[in-house]
Amino acid sequence: MAPSDSPEAKSISAYGVARSTIKPEKLLDQDEIRKIDAYFQASLYLCLGMLYLRDNPLLKEPLKKEHIKARVLGHWGSDAGQSFTWIHLNRVIIKYGLEILYISGPGHGAPGILSQSYLEGVYTEVYPDKTQDEDGMRRFFKQFSFPGGIGSHATPETPGSIHEGGELGYSISHAFGSVFDRPDLITIAVVGDGEAETGPLATSWHSTKFLNPITDGAVLPVLHLNGYKINNPTILARISHEELASLFKGYGWTPYFVEGSDRHSMHQAMAATVEHCILQIRKFQKQARESQTPFRPLWPMIVLRTLKGWTAPHDLDGKKLEGFWRAHQVPIPDVAVNPNHLKILESWMRSYNPEKLFDESGELNSELKALAPIGNARISANPVGNGGILRKPLNLPDFRKYMLPDIEAGISVAGSMTNMAKFLRDVISANMTNFRLFGPDETESNKLGEVYKATQKVWLGQYFEEDKDGGNLATSGRVMEMLSEHTVEGWLEGYILSGRHGLLNSYEPFIHIIDSMVNQHCKWLEKCLEIEWRAKVASLNILLTATVWRQDHNGFTHQDPGFLDVIANKSPEVVRIYLPPDGNCLLSVMDHCLRSMNYVNVIVADKQEHIQFLGPQDAIEHCAKGVGIWDWASNDQGKEPDVVLAGCGDVATNEALAATALLREYLPNLKIRFVNVVDLFRLISGTEHPHGMSDKEWGAIFTVDKPIIFNFHSYPWLVHRLTYKRPGQYNLHVRGYKEKGNIDTPFELAVRNQTDRYSLAIEAIDRIESLGNTASAVRERFIKLQLSAISVAYDKGIDPEHIRNWRWAFPSKS
Amino acid sequence: MAPSDSPEAKSISAYGVARSTIKPEKLLDQDEIRKIDAYFQASLYLCLGMLYLRDNPLLKEPLKKEHIKARVLGHWGSDAGQSFTWIHLNRVIIKYGLEILYISGPGHGAPGILSQSYLEGVYTEVYPDKTQDEDGMRRFFKQFSFPGGIGSHATPETPGSIHEGGELGYSISHAFGSVFDRPDLITIAVVGDGEAETGPLATSWHSTKFLNPITDGAVLPVLHLNGYKINNPTILARISHEELASLFKGYGWTPYFVEGSDRHSMHQAMAATVEHCILQIRKFQKQARESQTPFRPLWPMIVLRTLKGWTAPHDLDGKKLEGFWRAHQVPIPDVAVNPNHLKILESWMRSYNPEKLFDESGELNSELKALAPIGNARISANPVGNGGILRKPLNLPDFRKYMLPDIEAGISVAGSMTNMAKFLRDVISANMTNFRLFGPDETESNKLGEVYKATQKVWLGQYFEEDKDGGNLATSGRVMEMLSEHTVEGWLEGYILSGRHGLLNSYEPFIHIIDSMVNQHCKWLEKCLEIEWRAKVASLNILLTATVWRQDHNGFTHQDPGFLDVIANKSPEVVRIYLPPDGNCLLSVMDHCLRSMNYVNVIVADKQEHIQFLGPQDAIEHCAKGVGIWDWASNDQGKEPDVVLAGCGDVATNEALAATALLREYLPNLKIRFVNVVDLFRLISGTEHPHGMSDKEWGAIFTVDKPIIFNFHSYPWLVHRLTYKRPGQYNLHVRGYKEKGNIDTPFELAVRNQTDRYSLAIEAIDRIESLGNTASAVRERFIKLQLSAISVAYDKGIDPEHIRNWRWAFPSKS
Repeated sequence: MAPSDSPEAKSISAYGVARSTIKPEKLLDQDEIRKIDAYFQASLYLCLGMLYLRDNPLLKEPLKKEHIKARVLGHWGSDAGQSFTWIHLNRVIIKYGLEILYISGPGHGAPGILSQSYLEGVYTEVYPDKTQDEDGMRRFFKQFSFPGGIGSHATPETPGSIHEGGELGYSISHAFGSVFDRPDLITIAVVGDGEAETGPLATSWHSTKFLNPITDGAVLPVLHLNGYKINNPTILARISHEELASLFKGYGWTPYFVEGSDRHSMHQAMAATVEHCILQIRKFQKQARESQTPFRPLWPMIVLRTLKGWTAPHDLDGKKLEGFWRAHQVPIPDVAVNPNHLKILESWMRSYNPEKLFDESGELNSELKALAPIGNARISANPVGNGGILRKPLNLPDFRKYMLPDIEAGISVAGSMTNMAKFLRDVISANMTNFRLFGPDETESNKLGEVYKATQKVWLGQYFEEDKDGGNLATSGRVMEMLSEHTVEGWLEGYILSGRHGLLNSYEPFIHIIDSMVNQHCKWLEKCLEIEWRAKVASLNILLTATVWRQDHNGFTHQDPGFLDVIANKSPEVVRIYLPPDGNCLLSVMDHCLRSMNYVNVIVADKQEHIQFLGPQDAIEHCAKGVGIWDWASNDQGKEPDVVLAGCGDVATNEALAATALLREYLPNLKIRFVNVVDLFRLISGTEHPHGMSDKEWGAIFTVDKPIIFNFHSYPWLVHRLTYKRPGQYNLHVRGYKEKGNIDTPFELAVRNQTDRYSLAIEAIDRIESLGNTASAVRERFIKLQLSAISVAYDKGIDPEHIRNWRWAFPSKS
Repeated sequence: MAPSDSPEAKSISAYGVARSTIKPEKLLDQDEIRKIDAYFQASLYLCLGMLYLRDNPLLKEPLKKEHIKARVLGHWGSDAGQSFTWIHLNRVIIKYGLEILYISGPGHGAPGILSQSYLEGVYTEVYPDKTQDEDGMRRFFKQFSFPGGIGSHATPETPGSIHEGGELGYSISHAFGSVFDRPDLITIAVVGDGEAETGPLATSWHSTKFLNPITDGAVLPVLHLNGYKINNPTILARISHEELASLFKGYGWTPYFVEGSDRHSMHQAMAATVEHCILQIRKFQKQARESQTPFRPLWPMIVLRTLKGWTAPHDLDGKKLEGFWRAHQVPIPDVAVNPNHLKILESWMRSYNPEKLFDESGELNSELKALAPIGNARISANPVGNGGILRKPLNLPDFRKYMLPDIEAGISVAGSMTNMAKFLRDVISANMTNFRLFGPDETESNKLGEVYKATQKVWLGQYFEEDKDGGNLATSGRVMEMLSEHTVEGWLEGYILSGRHGLLNSYEPFIHIIDSMVNQHCKWLEKCLEIEWRAKVASLNILLTATVWRQDHNGFTHQDPGFLDVIANKSPEVVRIYLPPDGNCLLSVMDHCLRSMNYVNVIVADKQEHIQFLGPQDAIEHCAKGVGIWDWASNDQGKEPDVVLAGCGDVATNEALAATALLREYLPNLKIRFVNVVDLFRLISGTEHPHGMSDKEWGAIFTVDKPIIFNFHSYPWLVHRLTYKRPGQYNLHVRGYKEKGNIDTPFELAVRNQTDRYSLAIEAIDRIESLGNTASAVRERFIKLQLSAISVAYDKGIDPEHIRNWRWAFPSKS
């Protein structure tokens, strides 16, 4: 039995004459409505053409099956609602001279927005073969969801799009990212009621608590309640009007409803509502800007309730179509084999009267053309939608100034973040409208608190008296923190894609929360490389810290360095992974990443104090090479070594160096080469990644026949995956995190995973055949040292002093 | 300047005498309050003991630095609020005979709940060395966040916990999972206001639309507004009371507020509020159950606003402590080196009067003991918290009944899901309170619609007339769909951990959305294996479909098979990956997974129609082996082959077989062996994974010196990662998805990634040295065939018939 708590069940149907919060009072006259509706029909006609036709685009002859694509693919469900919204934005753009960006949450409804771009002429300007005539329209139709053509979302090929909408959940956070530091921009975020059920979207409504009405633009969300997902009703379309309104008031918005199916009254209602919302936004902005008092208004949003597949036939073969989930994808199936369906499609398409909308040549009537704005005021021509062209390089201070000058390799101790944080502080100062620092709640915890000397955390929530006592909150801060990795990543993506720069800092274990988002961003960047008119954007920079090896109290749940595996699967054209071994290298890497474009740069560096290795010049040279032999730690100068020890990652390098020192102390005749890897993709072949090295280079560094004991920051298999083709790969013994952990001291955790100095030294001894039995006493000694260090930890709860504050001097340095 | 829209800013402070929605009216008498507060103090005393002490647990002597742990780790911030909540639940459990499970969203506040388990005696029963005396208390304190001890979250070692709370966001969905089909259970979900900002949590409030008040239990959320995260205020603590109340009404709850810091009045208010909420829940349940009319009430929830670190000193060294973010972790630092801090800590701990709470031996006073329920009514003894002991094996129909009996290998065509869906249908029918099917919105799209003959989708939202037309909605359905991978995964985890069974079906590309959740579940399972008293739970089964190779219109964003890489990093004790090549194998694998325990089973199978290969018996035997030579496709019988072709994954196997057929047709003298892999971990060494095989087995199947052309479903490097140690690995040439895709036909996508039949056949020719020049004409021929097939696709928009409906007969079968 159905629940009985829903007296509103009927009243919230999307059928009938428009109902709206704002009463239209005849804003539009009859002629305006006629023209707007004709434009709407032109758009819908194009949508159907894209889905179905490969020929006969203007229906100049009766529709035959040979005009139909062999495989009909695409989504109809949200096309009408999205077209409708866009068209009503056009009106206010012209009336008020607005700058508007459109983000299509239901990117599957791409026909809705592609048709707009074509109608307003941008599509033809960008793709000259898609002319505004019958031939151009044929090509425009055929390419859609067709091999060699364009996808069925708002893909990078779509003019004006910075948001594909393939994966759902990020439309609001992307929209906010686009308007930060763009006070004149209003970004419309159309949110599908399916997308609205996702977690990332559900929390992103709170973004208003981080938007400054003076220095930022505004986001106008349009929640498009079309009632259905692929095969289900949506939650938000099946709760009472009261609950729905209450939900958005609770999120801090003022919802304005526009609901119905009657086109005439819907145009009137939507025109009035859009206009009201725009004026509200302008009013709030004016109030804040004139008073120079930032505040958080209850920003307007629109709830647009239409039928799913609005304007489709009511039913098909006796089953409900318009207003039901069956209208989600291709509304009429089998048109090529079902003559009746073909007929229904034809009469449906003809019901839009294409012959009245387009002239004989296929060009849109000039009366309708006049409804679109001109030049860059056209939504799909907004330069923000191709943010790379607006990108200004960062004004970067000289990173060398921040480096620790006097490094005694293996003796000096410092927090790698300390000086990098000073660099970031000055990057922020020098780029006050062009760079932001993002993080879930950990900027201070990640030892980057130095940045608060230059800026604060942006906060438009309430202020308490106690905030003065170290709150670091301000309405104009450049640091953005919300405990939602999804939201901060979405903001950053939107900020970058609209032409600015940024850095996300996060705990390493929880970056997996946004695996899928980063995947999607990589795919976006990769596709953009194939599109001539797309200008390059700043790289997405991710600093991972609080790493797996220092989770003394958070334990097993906080131990997961596997984000690197996810990244390594993406296209080599767009991903870079850096593991600087110490503070000076971190600075060098960070400077490089902030200058780069079109990459996802992942930087892994622990936040605790660590032994330092390289002085400024050495660090710069080492990072430029990405991998190198550390001569000062090696004793094989000019000769073939007996064994190669390698480290990649700060903690891993520290232990590998300690193992090297142990071996050199206890087995002084052994020839050891020490290698450090900063740039992970150096390990792969140059044919697979632009940073890769040749087998010849590989052999010169790692040898082709000597045992290599490679201590790696992350899961060891990633290194094997990158090197399985290398000569001598059978000699490569990689140690890394093997999912063994608990509430361990750093040393104990290393022992569990065999990445500690003793395990590495023992591994080296075991792998060097020439040692024979001579090393067995040393081996025993190492085992005893290891056990005694662990027992201290178990007794005292901390690692023994010589492990925690371990120093060593190589013979050559002593 | 601060925003000025917050007249409520002051009024929502957590200081002062309790304010509450429900007026207490002296529910508790003075003596009850005194006792409850004493119990509260006992709990808080234990929390501090856990954080700080390794000795002198009862403070029988003055506190000295040698009593303090060498490293003080843990979280104080939410301990008091969580203890407070638990204690007030105890009262209603005794009064009303309730069955209550407690989920700690802020798992970092583990001391708050560990202390409860110790006080109610469960901890001592489970861990007999943690006796209820001074020695036991010392051990209880010392083990916390100490090497060899327990972690600082609600880890699996915590009695009564099914939710660690290390990663945030899943408390509400886990709680709902625990109460489905447990009508008598009330699960309390304490949600931190930090956690509340995460996306997964923000959407999980909507879970009420899927809860049946007759057959399911209830969830009582306690939103714990303590105002601060690690270093920031929380959003929900800094919006107006009106917005906050509106938000939760919008989510469909009735929020009851309890706010303040005065303990006396807070006890009174909390007692009344908890009691009111419990009675409301019982009232709604009674109404639905007596009338047999399920409905969705506006379920009660509690908003508990306390000070962060409530009951801590107000300030430390002149800086605010209680009620500020500084109280998040260890509230008083440096006690071992700062004598003044040590003194403050001591007087703070003594302020709880331990000598009045515990007797001389260290046992809790009997007066206080009586405040806890007894036996399994104690929250931490609830068997649901160790769900494995309640687990009943599924009543499984014989899967062989559902197999396609007459398979002509390489000729028969069927959808692999078709018969498996019938099996699932009957699994559901036979386990109507013990099994559920979960998915974001894709069960029908994934061709599992057959299950709707046995059940429907559970839906407690509004019903419309149109739902009768194929809606498949019911208040008592066994299929759970919400467009939030996070929520359905959370429900499933909660359902399994509380002793039941389930299956999640999802599109392959978007399973990355829950990478992090599945990671955490793997870690939970892994730790449980080390804990004697934890009974095994059903496996978490994930069926991935709509795979990378069939994304004809969704394109590049929907192409990501990399979830397998994430899973492969987890402990081999708990992860299994299956890629059945056809429908009968899928059935065999599914049956196996549904019977298994304590694993995460990932099954990858496409939903489109595919060529079938194995009859029932062959499929069962093949799946049991996990990898095998397909004799019927090979022509090397009894001899060493010239080349091995292998497939892993349905589409990959199809193309590899097609390549085999091509080679055999065009180069009939070639000896080819064909291998199929179902169980991915067969590829790895037996020393690394229980399913792994020895090098000897490997050599017998794959050879140690012949070229192996291995066509893989996912990214090719995963296979290299699993096999880098194998003899002959240099001869292993893996093809798979290499992040090359667009809006491609299946064949074109394969060509882009070199996984199509022609590319594989050409690769084989290139790798067989013995062929010399004789094969160059064949090679040319294959290239021509490949090009012509692509050009058909580009012209017609579909693959040529011989590619789409490809049939072949091997000589031995013809």
